[in-house]
Amino acid sequence: MKIAVVEGDGIGKEVIPAAIEVLDVLALPVEKVPVELGYAKWEKTGSAITDDDLAVLKECDCILFGAITTPSDPTYKSVLLTIRKELDMYANIRPIKPINGIVGVTGRSDFNLVIVRENTEGMYSGIEELHEDVAYTKRVITRKGSARIADYACKLAKSRQHRLEIAHKSNVLKSDRLFLDVCRQTASSYHIDHHDTLVDSMAYNLIVHPNRYDVVVTTNLFGDILSDMAAALVGGLGLVPSANIGKGHAFFEPVHGSAPDIAGKGIANPIAAILSLKMMLEWYELNHQAKLVQDAIEFAINQNIVTPDLGGISTTREVGNTIAERVKQL
Amino acid sequence: MKIAVVEGDGIGKEVIPAAIEVLDVLALPVEKVPVELGYAKWEKTGSAITDDDLAVLKECDCILFGAITTPSDPTYKSVLLTIRKELDMYANIRPIKPINGIVGVTGRSDFNLVIVRENTEGMYSGIEELHEDVAYTKRVITRKGSARIADYACKLAKSRQHRLEIAHKSNVLKSDRLFLDVCRQTASSYHIDHHDTLVDSMAYNLIVHPNRYDVVVTTNLFGDILSDMAAALVGGLGLVPSANIGKGHAFFEPVHGSAPDIAGKGIANPIAAILSLKMMLEWYELNHQAKLVQDAIEFAINQNIVTPDLGGISTTREVGNTIAERVKQL
Ligand SMILES: CC(C)[C@H](C(=O)O)[C@@H](O)C(=O)O
Ligand SMILES: CC(C)[C@H](C(=O)O)[C@@H](O)C(=O)O
Repeated sequence: MKIAVVEGDGIGKEVIPAAIEVLDVLALPVEKVPVELGYAKWEKTGSAITDDDLAVLKECDCILFGAITTPSDPTYKSVLLTIRKELDMYANIRPIKPINGIVGVTGRSDFNLVIVRENTEGMYSGIEELHEDVAYTKRVITRKGSARIADYACKLAKSRQHRLEIAHKSNVLKSDRLFLDVCRQTASSYHIDHHDTLVDSMAYNLIVHPNRYDVVVTTNLFGDILSDMAAALVGGLGLVPSANIGKGHAFFEPVHGSAPDIAGKGIANPIAAILSLKMMLEWYELNHQAKLVQDAIEFAINQNIVTPDLGGISTTREVGNTIAERVKQL
Repeated sequence: MKIAVVEGDGIGKEVIPAAIEVLDVLALPVEKVPVELGYAKWEKTGSAITDDDLAVLKECDCILFGAITTPSDPTYKSVLLTIRKELDMYANIRPIKPINGIVGVTGRSDFNLVIVRENTEGMYSGIEELHEDVAYTKRVITRKGSARIADYACKLAKSRQHRLEIAHKSNVLKSDRLFLDVCRQTASSYHIDHHDTLVDSMAYNLIVHPNRYDVVVTTNLFGDILSDMAAALVGGLGLVPSANIGKGHAFFEPVHGSAPDIAGKGIANPIAAILSLKMMLEWYELNHQAKLVQDAIEFAINQNIVTPDLGGISTTREVGNTIAERVKQL
């Protein structure tokens, strides 16, 4: 196991050490490769990520990633997008699942869904044309890109409730007909029960009827919006992990950003990062260890050893510590 | 006052008559021009909206609009988009305001915001390229389009809490930098307190912290998604009206669609349509009448004369009747 560890900026520097503490007590045969990337590096060196960094990342099996600050400087190239692209991480997986002991903004916990977001194309094509008075972005939907994400989503649905919801906007975007058609065909070939919803209606229904869904598959930017929003269902961005999956590579990161407003205060919630670690363990098929981590997180919550975003008074370090200690005992 | 009345399809045929009943009891000097548009018409005649229809619509001051079913047939041209485009209805206004007596999905009612959605460009450009294995949609952001919506939003903010939130995705879409820059400049020139948020984070914060916002301005598709989602805050799509505003023209419609699943059952909630009528009255500066309508809606809710979506047992007609009767008494 060779894991690149990218703390990144802001609270990334706080939550990743907490996750690493938990990884360490599992005493796995793991080589950790720290990689410095991000805004701070860009300020120092003029480059947020170099080709050498990418080479190191590619040598590792996977990446545990904190968060990175994106300055508004237009010359700055997003590290996250660079990694997703260079390592062809085509599937972005965001489980929206209540955590025992925590109630989200709607008060319900009768749901368990996963948002599968296409992660390489759509509005993230980078094909833009900027003029003085008009600017264009080209949304790109390919058959190949749609097929591989549909395939991923269907395989996932097969291991779960066999239900697939396809979120799109094909009543306006003709490019989404291709996406929709390919998803439907793929689902049929997998004998998965499938259904589709317009993205606006999906946003509403995810909040109001989250229990209707098992696996939701969608294009890049819609997945970005829906998954952030859905974090409200489980009790906040401090609780939602994600995985970016490619062929033979993966990277794991909390859905939250670098949160400059609370960075350095030691109060960032490390649970999203620790759940990202849990997704990494599952990716390695270390399901027993993944379960230990989940149980330890629930233990900390049960003891009310939680950060202020969850109404607690504990620090990032205390929460990380409690979870790590509990994993050791379990 | 010359008003085109478009019932459209599905529950449009139920909720618009309810709104008209309320309009009628106000006994205003109004000429109502019924216009048949939509899917049913398309099935009969091959055309959902004709040039003659458009000419009639243009002759009216404004339109009261129900909902239209969009078939998946790719040759079908959206009526809604055609009207918005042909009448250059550039501002789509969606107030997200709790209604006395109804609690939304998060249980809170300490918010009052308006989503101002650019309504003519962005992802709705209609510029698409469809090939066998790839499909493109061109997102178009113009300085002019951004300036007029920013202007509208700032004027609105001036009449409210003087606060503007700009929702965008400029960290990924360079086309959104133009939008963001123009909005910022406009807000500064109006001395409006402004702030901006990435659309993914906006989706989350709208649900979790709706009280932070006064006027939210955004591009076309983001506004579509955010406003549907935000309907969950006020208790459902059956409660949210909208206005499409152009130069000297406007049209008013519930945010909900034609809801084929419940159409014909007489149980559609007419409140969104009646609130759309209320927005129309405000557009005519009939503020007293608008207030009567609002009060009468609250009366019906108070008496629990509401449709099943709000937990009641009343029909569309009963709710419409109750509201109309109450307006008469007030
Ligand atoms: C930081 C940004 C480029 C990124 C995205 O839009 O994909 C983030 O919002 C995410 O969801 O991982
Ligand atoms: C029906 C559809 C074309 C429309 C849109 O996307 O604008 C609708 O969702 C809306 O919000 O009015």
